[in-house]
Amino acid sequence: MKYNFSDRISALQPSAIREILKMSSDPQVISFAAGNPAPEAFPTQAIADISKQVLEQNPIGALQYSLTEGYPALRESMKDFAFNHYGIGKSFDELVIVSGAQQGIELTCKVLCNEKDTIICEDPSFIGSLNSFRSYNTNLVGVEMEDDGINVEALEEAIKHNPNTKFIYVIPNFQNPTGKTMSYFKRKRVYELAKQHHIMILEDNPYGDLRFEGDDLPSIKSMDTEGLVIYVGSFSKVLSPGMRVGYLIAHQDLVSKIVVAKQCADVHSNILAQIICEKFVTNYDIEGHLTRLKEVYKHKCELMLSEMDKHFSECVAYTRPQGGLFIWCTLPEHVDMVAFCKKAVSEYKVAVVPGSAFLVTEGTKTQSFRINFSTPTDEQIVKGIELLGKLTKELC
Amino acid sequence: MKYNFSDRISALQPSAIREILKMSSDPQVISFAAGNPAPEAFPTQAIADISKQVLEQNPIGALQYSLTEGYPALRESMKDFAFNHYGIGKSFDELVIVSGAQQGIELTCKVLCNEKDTIICEDPSFIGSLNSFRSYNTNLVGVEMEDDGINVEALEEAIKHNPNTKFIYVIPNFQNPTGKTMSYFKRKRVYELAKQHHIMILEDNPYGDLRFEGDDLPSIKSMDTEGLVIYVGSFSKVLSPGMRVGYLIAHQDLVSKIVVAKQCADVHSNILAQIICEKFVTNYDIEGHLTRLKEVYKHKCELMLSEMDKHFSECVAYTRPQGGLFIWCTLPEHVDMVAFCKKAVSEYKVAVVPGSAFLVTEGTKTQSFRINFSTPTDEQIVKGIELLGKLTKELC
Repeated sequence: MKYNFSDRISALQPSAIREILKMSSDPQVISFAAGNPAPEAFPTQAIADISKQVLEQNPIGALQYSLTEGYPALRESMKDFAFNHYGIGKSFDELVIVSGAQQGIELTCKVLCNEKDTIICEDPSFIGSLNSFRSYNTNLVGVEMEDDGINVEALEEAIKHNPNTKFIYVIPNFQNPTGKTMSYFKRKRVYELAKQHHIMILEDNPYGDLRFEGDDLPSIKSMDTEGLVIYVGSFSKVLSPGMRVGYLIAHQDLVSKIVVAKQCADVHSNILAQIICEKFVTNYDIEGHLTRLKEVYKHKCELMLSEMDKHFSECVAYTRPQGGLFIWCTLPEHVDMVAFCKKAVSEYKVAVVPGSAFLVTEGTKTQSFRINFSTPTDEQIVKGIELLGKLTKELC
Repeated sequence: MKYNFSDRISALQPSAIREILKMSSDPQVISFAAGNPAPEAFPTQAIADISKQVLEQNPIGALQYSLTEGYPALRESMKDFAFNHYGIGKSFDELVIVSGAQQGIELTCKVLCNEKDTIICEDPSFIGSLNSFRSYNTNLVGVEMEDDGINVEALEEAIKHNPNTKFIYVIPNFQNPTGKTMSYFKRKRVYELAKQHHIMILEDNPYGDLRFEGDDLPSIKSMDTEGLVIYVGSFSKVLSPGMRVGYLIAHQDLVSKIVVAKQCADVHSNILAQIICEKFVTNYDIEGHLTRLKEVYKHKCELMLSEMDKHFSECVAYTRPQGGLFIWCTLPEHVDMVAFCKKAVSEYKVAVVPGSAFLVTEGTKTQSFRINFSTPTDEQIVKGIELLGKLTKELC
């Protein structure tokens, strides 16, 4: 039978990264393609202890239907966390627990955008968010990334050319895929532009707690005096992505609508996972845990960069991120980037993600690819970068 | 600030039931308003044991990112379960794990319907599904419920009058809110009509495993030779609703699109919960557990009905369900149903849900209200029905 899918969905393809990840399930392949937290970064014992305690002491509370807004104690904990870590939380703000930041991003689009409305995105950007926006038939406009974040002059032009813009989507800290961080100046400028043109900002901060170098910069949400900024955070990189727990902070009027939309989407997020997050944040040494995480990622990133410095051809450029999970590499103009990535996985058995996967306008050209340092072991980093280095010298 | 919400969301209101549930959080109120499984029906020890074992033996597997399609072993188990219990599973069918049946229902609508497309629903029907359909700006057409399910002549008329119908939404077993079961004849007729008019059927079966009287009837999906039927099942009523695990079975081409949409929605469902479901279905006595559940619900339903027979005014009609969680009561024409429900909770301290909450066309009149027998204790059933009975005699 031939199915008639909705317009919004019929053109949508599965993430290109998933296809690469399938190839990299070959045990011979060293994968720099994923974005998984390091296995050694999970506080597995603490999670096992908490889970045991909860299922002994209050099993019905952990298994019964719960509130769409989220587990009340977790909502309070995360309000405190966001205030203490990011200066977030005006009197008009409210917080809702979501099933991973991904759900917060999708519901923001669903609640704000009609079909054909414009969303302005950093280009390249996180493919999960781009596909989520595409799944509502919105018009995506990409604005180029510079080393210190989005090009704010080009952003202003894009806003002027798209009067139906509903929001600007940004990942200010250690952006996926580029690893770049938006400067303080640009954060302020993005906020000013949004305020001036009466549009919203969706600030996605999955990696903010993973800064292993340099000083924290204020979140855009912390500058929000008007209720223009929707902030999404996640437990995926600091505790466990498999639990699917994130949070969204925005003006209470917006959060009310997000809650209505979430009720339609999945009623509420897994309640045992919410209780585990709450007990971990409240009863365990979360600051000490974050310090250990940062050490793990700092070590892996530095190892990867020093091996790249040793083995990569000089004509390959790459970012030196101060946090997060990713490094963005750019090949010289004369090299065919897609052929490079294909040869890397098929001949050298090293998987990377072609930058084209992250482009806002599909079909635009890019010379870049993304590599991840959080998932591979030290041995895999050393071996894989040596192999990639050979390929850079062969092709560049 | 005044927010411009999307057209699809701006008119959507939080479920009326939630507002009643807030009132019924008053500890003095006996609530027949919820739809929660009985607390004594949770296999809490088994879940605690499984969870402990999984978090000891394979913590990373239970906490790391996982596949959008769902935990492979659970997908296989549920294919077997659906085949053995409901005769479901043609060679063209595939199964995807969803974050509760609610997500399967929402994604079906997202994947199949453009705005203004028609969905034909039993009237009254499950409010969570209706709101989910409304959240995509679809056109809902209600068809009246008879004692043996949807009026199939009226269904045929509705299909003819709405050539843009994408699917028919039905809950054939112990429907929410009416507790009614669709006859075998009508199941066949609904399938024939869908086939004849090239439209799909969304078969929602959250209560099918809770038949405590009479014989099982074939699912509509079991008759599906063309790939027309999308079937959603759930662990919410048989294991735990707080885990948010359900499954959707449909033609593989449809499931592929649902998977793409799910990736945008929440990447994947909580993986620990999926592993718990799988281990419970595979290693524990699931059939024995279902037998015990049915005993619990049979007892509660019979108790409530016998108390109603004793205390209710003769002019109140009500269904005698063979399974599920709900009884549907209908007041005589001269009684103001909404005033009855208000007086029940405010003066008699018994919460019920006015039937208007479940109507497909908002603003249509109904004389009915829904009561639930799974959540209250035996004592609450006896006391609450006695009080409601007094009110029926006062007002009828």
